[in-house]
Amino acid sequence: MPVSTSRLEAFSDGVFAIAITLLVLEIRVPAGQGDHLWRALGHEWPSFAGFVVSFVTIGIIWVNHHGLFDSVREVNRPLLFLNLFLLLSVAFIPFTTALMADYLREGQGQDVATAVYAGSLLLMGWGFTALGQYLHRKRPPGYEELSEADRRELVVRSTAGWLVYAVAVAVAFVNAYAGLAICGLVALAYIPGRWLGTPES
Amino acid sequence: MPVSTSRLEAFSDGVFAIAITLLVLEIRVPAGQGDHLWRALGHEWPSFAGFVVSFVTIGIIWVNHHGLFDSVREVNRPLLFLNLFLLLSVAFIPFTTALMADYLREGQGQDVATAVYAGSLLLMGWGFTALGQYLHRKRPPGYEELSEADRRELVVRSTAGWLVYAVAVAVAFVNAYAGLAICGLVALAYIPGRWLGTPES
Amino acid sequence: MPVSTSRLEAFSDGVFAIAITLLVLEIRVPAGQGDHLWRALGHEWPSFAGFVVSFVTIGIIWVNHHGLFDSVREVNRPLLFLNLFLLLSVAFIPFTTALMADYLREGQGQDVATAVYAGSLLLMGWGFTALGQYLHRKRPPGYEELSEADRRELVVRSTAGWLVYAVAVAVAFVNAYAGLAICGLVALAYIPGRWLGTPES
Amino acid sequence: MPVSTSRLEAFSDGVFAIAITLLVLEIRVPAGQGDHLWRALGHEWPSFAGFVVSFVTIGIIWVNHHGLFDSVREVNRPLLFLNLFLLLSVAFIPFTTALMADYLREGQGQDVATAVYAGSLLLMGWGFTALGQYLHRKRPPGYEELSEADRRELVVRSTAGWLVYAVAVAVAFVNAYAGLAICGLVALAYIPGRWLGTPES
Repeated sequence: MPVSTSRLEAFSDGVFAIAITLLVLEIRVPAGQGDHLWRALGHEWPSFAGFVVSFVTIGIIWVNHHGLFDSVREVNRPLLFLNLFLLLSVAFIPFTTALMADYLREGQGQDVATAVYAGSLLLMGWGFTALGQYLHRKRPPGYEELSEADRRELVVRSTAGWLVYAVAVAVAFVNAYAGLAICGLVALAYIPGRWLGTPES
Repeated sequence: MPVSTSRLEAFSDGVFAIAITLLVLEIRVPAGQGDHLWRALGHEWPSFAGFVVSFVTIGIIWVNHHGLFDSVREVNRPLLFLNLFLLLSVAFIPFTTALMADYLREGQGQDVATAVYAGSLLLMGWGFTALGQYLHRKRPPGYEELSEADRRELVVRSTAGWLVYAVAVAVAFVNAYAGLAICGLVALAYIPGRWLGTPES
Repeated sequence: MPVSTSRLEAFSDGVFAIAITLLVLEIRVPAGQGDHLWRALGHEWPSFAGFVVSFVTIGIIWVNHHGLFDSVREVNRPLLFLNLFLLLSVAFIPFTTALMADYLREGQGQDVATAVYAGSLLLMGWGFTALGQYLHRKRPPGYEELSEADRRELVVRSTAGWLVYAVAVAVAFVNAYAGLAICGLVALAYIPGRWLGTPES
Repeated sequence: MPVSTSRLEAFSDGVFAIAITLLVLEIRVPAGQGDHLWRALGHEWPSFAGFVVSFVTIGIIWVNHHGLFDSVREVNRPLLFLNLFLLLSVAFIPFTTALMADYLREGQGQDVATAVYAGSLLLMGWGFTALGQYLHRKRPPGYEELSEADRRELVVRSTAGWLVYAVAVAVAFVNAYAGLAICGLVALAYIPGRWLGTPES
């Protein structure tokens, strides 16, 4: 009684869309700031930065998820559970984003909080790489093989992604802002490239 | 590995539907008002007004989004990221709605809060105009050209939309209520007109 | 540039599914009750009752919404905005449910709070009746006419629905519990009947 | 005016996807822990454990739900309402997860809280079993009969599921941690097996 690929994608899209939109609930309205509201909003910059970085990162994973599942015709049990693990890591991001933002604002404990944030992106990167590895190694029934060039690019990019997140975890312990900046740069770096849907390149 | 238009629309619809429904979570239940509940609810009018204006505004953008993507057959990278920017601006609206409502209620700092609210609608208007401009200038593969009249109307309406939001930002610094009223009027003004789905006109 | 019926239904389904699931966020975990947790949970009964009544009510409206739109082939502007009004009233229900539950628990102001809750269901009933009336009076292009019997039943049931909600609003001012009970009975009364999907009856 | 199976599945998928993603909102960011953030996060382990167990459990129910409805061609009224009951029990899980996590953390009242959590999974198990029983006993029009082996496995597994949850409720009163562990083990035990989509086994 297999789950069809289109259903798996629709469910996953739902989780991506909800997680990306829930991020906003973690931004708190500063209370009772009266005439100092501008300054109070400026003080909230970690929430806004976290919102943007997490939003773009989940958006990119959504795009890549489709790239991956476009070549899958049938979903089997391991795929189902690797995918559930990826979704779990994505659904967890609103919490780690809020954690990082709160502690960057307070200016104490921000190293651990940012490391946890980068760690949650690392987890997501692992989830995505595991899905890709499974597909390219096991070649489940209905799997349309990628060209060698496509395959290599996928491996390089997804491995690079989580390696850089691992670096961000380490850097966060030295400087939280630098750790967050690396996470933001990964999102920027993913924007170009073939995996993001250019038909002709 | 392009993302199909229907998938992009389904994902965007998800974000629109979630953002529009999350608005309700920003309305707070007044605590412990006992026999003064009517008055307490009246005091919450900025939350209700913000809920209605944001709900209708996101509803209209949802309709217009379909109008725009109906003429697109293939999604490329720039479209994907312009759309992600539009979704980010939409997902941000529940926060700015709550911010405006809280400060209108408190009666201090409401000018800045309302300007930020109008600014978030302005951002959304820019996102939508940028998507339209891209389509009409670049004419990506699969794009079915609009008639000259349709095109002009789209440009006029979306440009008018964000120009009026820019005015609302400025007005909010003078009078917050007037700024909010302008945002509400934009929603009302968009209700008539061809872009909202009349098949015969 | 009309919005297709299937898209309108998908978007509406999204709002229904989100509103119905968000209801749970309005149930608060009683804090620090230790060994008195059973009693504290019992004390929360208005939240549980509100959750169930609102959940079933929105579920029924979802079913009826499909019954209504199954006979529509083309969406025009008035339909789009009547539908947006219905969705707004549905998205508002998590707030009024929480309001009623909080004040029933406190035992002061529960009359107003329950009247507001019944009033929000009344609003939803009006929205649904207005949609039905529009369809049956204007017969927009693509509308497949109902049989006279079906039509009469739809009119009777949806009119009965909001009339009873109007009674619930009035009753709530006398006795809040009776007002809530009436709202629950409407949900029960809707469960049987042709509009809920029996193909043969 | 029947609701089509695909629509019912899409609506149910929406509720599953939203409930699974809302779980994260119940994890609280520990406030003001500064340099003790690691320890504070460790102290939050019940929230993380609850998140993972509930996430995987809802994920499995989603898969099984498809397994069940794949053999249904027409939805009638009893199916609609049995399904609504199942969705209600799923939508309730974020509350019981938060309740359990809060009281495990506090170390008082955790027996009742964990019993309530296991009870909510039991409720979901009943809902699922009731759906299966209805299908296999009534064989509604359009229902494609399962093979005897498939049927027996479905009955055994779903009955086993809620029996074990009933045990978890009882055990929770003796030892809350053991009760939670049983809930986690049910999720693990469901991962293998034919119902989770292996095409060849």
